[in-house]
Amino acid sequence: MKLKVKDIDISSGGPLIAVLNHQDAAMLDLHVMDRIKIKKRGKIETVVVDIAESNKVVPKGRIGVFEEVIISLKLKNNDVVDIVIARKPLSIDYIKKKLDGQKLTKNEIDQIVWDIVHNKLSAVELTYFVAACYTNVMTTEETILLTKAMVKHGDVLKLKKYPVIDKHSIGGIPGNRTTLVIVPIMTAAGYHMPKTSSRSITSPAGTADTMEVLADVTFPIKRMKDIVLKTKGCIVWGGSLNLAPADDKIIAVERPLEIDAESQLLASIMAKKHSVSSTHILIDVPVGKDSKVKNIVEALRLKKEFNKIGKRLNKKVRVLITDGTQPIGNGIGPALEARDILWLLKRDPKRPLDLEKKCLMMCSNIFGMIGVKYGYKKTLQILNSGKAYQKMVEIIKAQGGKEVAAEDIKIGRHSYDVSSTRSGIVRHIDNLFVSRIARIAGAPRDKGAGIYLYKHVGDRVKRGEKLFTIYSESMHALDYAKDVAKSNEVFVVG
Amino acid sequence: MKLKVKDIDISSGGPLIAVLNHQDAAMLDLHVMDRIKIKKRGKIETVVVDIAESNKVVPKGRIGVFEEVIISLKLKNNDVVDIVIARKPLSIDYIKKKLDGQKLTKNEIDQIVWDIVHNKLSAVELTYFVAACYTNVMTTEETILLTKAMVKHGDVLKLKKYPVIDKHSIGGIPGNRTTLVIVPIMTAAGYHMPKTSSRSITSPAGTADTMEVLADVTFPIKRMKDIVLKTKGCIVWGGSLNLAPADDKIIAVERPLEIDAESQLLASIMAKKHSVSSTHILIDVPVGKDSKVKNIVEALRLKKEFNKIGKRLNKKVRVLITDGTQPIGNGIGPALEARDILWLLKRDPKRPLDLEKKCLMMCSNIFGMIGVKYGYKKTLQILNSGKAYQKMVEIIKAQGGKEVAAEDIKIGRHSYDVSSTRSGIVRHIDNLFVSRIARIAGAPRDKGAGIYLYKHVGDRVKRGEKLFTIYSESMHALDYAKDVAKSNEVFVVG
Repeated sequence: MKLKVKDIDISSGGPLIAVLNHQDAAMLDLHVMDRIKIKKRGKIETVVVDIAESNKVVPKGRIGVFEEVIISLKLKNNDVVDIVIARKPLSIDYIKKKLDGQKLTKNEIDQIVWDIVHNKLSAVELTYFVAACYTNVMTTEETILLTKAMVKHGDVLKLKKYPVIDKHSIGGIPGNRTTLVIVPIMTAAGYHMPKTSSRSITSPAGTADTMEVLADVTFPIKRMKDIVLKTKGCIVWGGSLNLAPADDKIIAVERPLEIDAESQLLASIMAKKHSVSSTHILIDVPVGKDSKVKNIVEALRLKKEFNKIGKRLNKKVRVLITDGTQPIGNGIGPALEARDILWLLKRDPKRPLDLEKKCLMMCSNIFGMIGVKYGYKKTLQILNSGKAYQKMVEIIKAQGGKEVAAEDIKIGRHSYDVSSTRSGIVRHIDNLFVSRIARIAGAPRDKGAGIYLYKHVGDRVKRGEKLFTIYSESMHALDYAKDVAKSNEVFVVG
Repeated sequence: MKLKVKDIDISSGGPLIAVLNHQDAAMLDLHVMDRIKIKKRGKIETVVVDIAESNKVVPKGRIGVFEEVIISLKLKNNDVVDIVIARKPLSIDYIKKKLDGQKLTKNEIDQIVWDIVHNKLSAVELTYFVAACYTNVMTTEETILLTKAMVKHGDVLKLKKYPVIDKHSIGGIPGNRTTLVIVPIMTAAGYHMPKTSSRSITSPAGTADTMEVLADVTFPIKRMKDIVLKTKGCIVWGGSLNLAPADDKIIAVERPLEIDAESQLLASIMAKKHSVSSTHILIDVPVGKDSKVKNIVEALRLKKEFNKIGKRLNKKVRVLITDGTQPIGNGIGPALEARDILWLLKRDPKRPLDLEKKCLMMCSNIFGMIGVKYGYKKTLQILNSGKAYQKMVEIIKAQGGKEVAAEDIKIGRHSYDVSSTRSGIVRHIDNLFVSRIARIAGAPRDKGAGIYLYKHVGDRVKRGEKLFTIYSESMHALDYAKDVAKSNEVFVVG
């Protein structure tokens, strides 16, 4: 059947979709979510069918195509294309198999990941895959195959160095910006650490958002490699690279239900590390009731799985189970966190000691993994000598930034102090409210917005003494954040 | 935030969706599949967010809206609307709960069904619900609640009669057009039988397609009631009515994976019967390797479930497990089946005896359910007296058709005979190939297209004797159907 292209001027955000008029669809016996092949100038693309019931949108004889199809087949409005019925992708059968509780083979997982990466699956089909892996949990074997398939169907940073260090903190804790301390320390010690980080999704800042206060974070993989070869390290946004791209597509359909299938979490983390040639990976698992990992049992199970997968991928993996019950560091929000980092690296008395302590512990563990003795002492030396700070400046410059004094980092110009209404010991800080208030104040969109904490759990506080300050660029946002702060118990003092 | 409406001139096919520019979305901290409320002239509608990455499709300051939103809020292009962030529907939490293997309560199931009917869920969210019910099979209790919720959130035909008879055949068998025989018999016997039927989805004809050869089948519920009050019975298309509308939306996301969650199958059938006030329901479960129900164990389990649910809904349910290994009746395709029915009701020697035998057995069972003795004899009397035929003519007329002789029904003008290449006994007829050939020939789109069978399993056939004829309106389609018939073993003779 020959049809005339109508550019419907909208993107599907991934899947290749074409819209047929209901009469043409009936002629070919096609239903919504069936497949057709579109042929044009020797190029062929298989797309998912949607059907227009009204003749207004897509008249008979025409085919409405989404942005992704236009690009893939280099179509123009009114081009005439040839349409034939296509089989469903093989991976549909494999997804059904997993939904039926069966184990998938290497080829099956590989086909599914290929189809995900190449936008061959509709959102509904991909959702079945996620739901299947969530309810019929993948075996370790399957998770390893998923990890490998994710790496295979994406770009790879080949470094040919040993060791290549990496770290990952499982999210949910405000602050906790350890990467920005660990990368300069380990690279100053002479090791390679090509770190990719994420932006915030539901938190006030991701590591990439915070680094962006100091330097660019969006690079193609070739530039990233240049930076790493020059300075040994980098802190770039993983989202702009094409590392394990299946992962981002999976996460997109996990969001609506806030699902976190364990096998996908594991595969996702390990695939991204594997893609940048990491050999030694430290995983930080903060445990707390508002963290991603709620209790120690869950954390231990995750640790076991990480170790198994690490071994099978020929990587050294060490999992640290850490305290996730309160924010780590004083600043929450990109600029406030970046200022903390510079203070810490410059050994300023205002530096957050809890974050420093955690980074020291993590670096010691990394040294331990690569077989270097006296790691703790070594880390402290690198920090105190100013070498870590120098390295950070080097990386910032390599990423297009320039050296800046902590005090010169722009913090939101409106602020509001919240003080304690009683004297006593800080018993609890509510992570969820800290995050929410910082976000309402504008973080991470407004780099300068966020919260600065003066107290942590266990600290003594007097009535009327400041607990935290909210910063914002907008009076309006600040007012709203203030209301939330006042009407909820963010700090429990008793 | 105030935004200017852009009618993007496309329908989502259900869910209420609006597209924001990525910059506006960032301002409100919105992600794909989040919710917003759109306010216009005192009307408010909650919709699912999609995000346009390019400024071309939806520029900053504008909001692209799908057809469904345009209609719901009576919007016009360039209208200015007010946008606020909305919470996710409550049912998202319940869907997650089911996915986590927990049992749902009455209120939770009710909320999910309400949200489905009112297009509050995105396709991805609805898919999670279907996947959850498929992997974590619903209890009988939950299935009953689902059935009731489906009925509640849809239209209902209140008849206030007793008994009200209904029947349902679980699909997969070519032909098997029992409804068109049973409705005239039971209504001729003085009982009410307000029958709603489906159109074909993957078969050569649904009962509604076949009835449409003789009369109209698309009516609003009020007209359906008038017809039933006048003639006691009807055979109308259920799809045009708003009976248990959640069901159709669920089926739409089941199609891509060809999933058939048992709880949904049960709830779907029982809800549609419940919606038309049926009190006595006969369920025909054909068993065969190409049927929906593959084996006797599955059939018996289904029977048990139907009986349990029937009891709980205060309905008399009887389940018949029947032979689903070969087509039933001679004609396959709307017109060919309609001709069979008229021959059968008119007691013509050309009538299909296998279909007649099955209908006699089913009617006897219905008589048995309502406590009438000598059901078989009674059925035969009604048929032979011509009362069933007279009743059928009455119903056809009430539905806007007119009396027509079987011979005057238009059959596809092109035909091709397939004869046996050997002598022997017909051992097997392949249901799937019979359906496929009839569909390729044009059924159900071309009413006259299909297959006419001269032989059934067990019949003796001589070499060169006709097995079946393919009919089509199009030479081209017939050629293609012919090829499939010739290159596959549709009949096994030996």
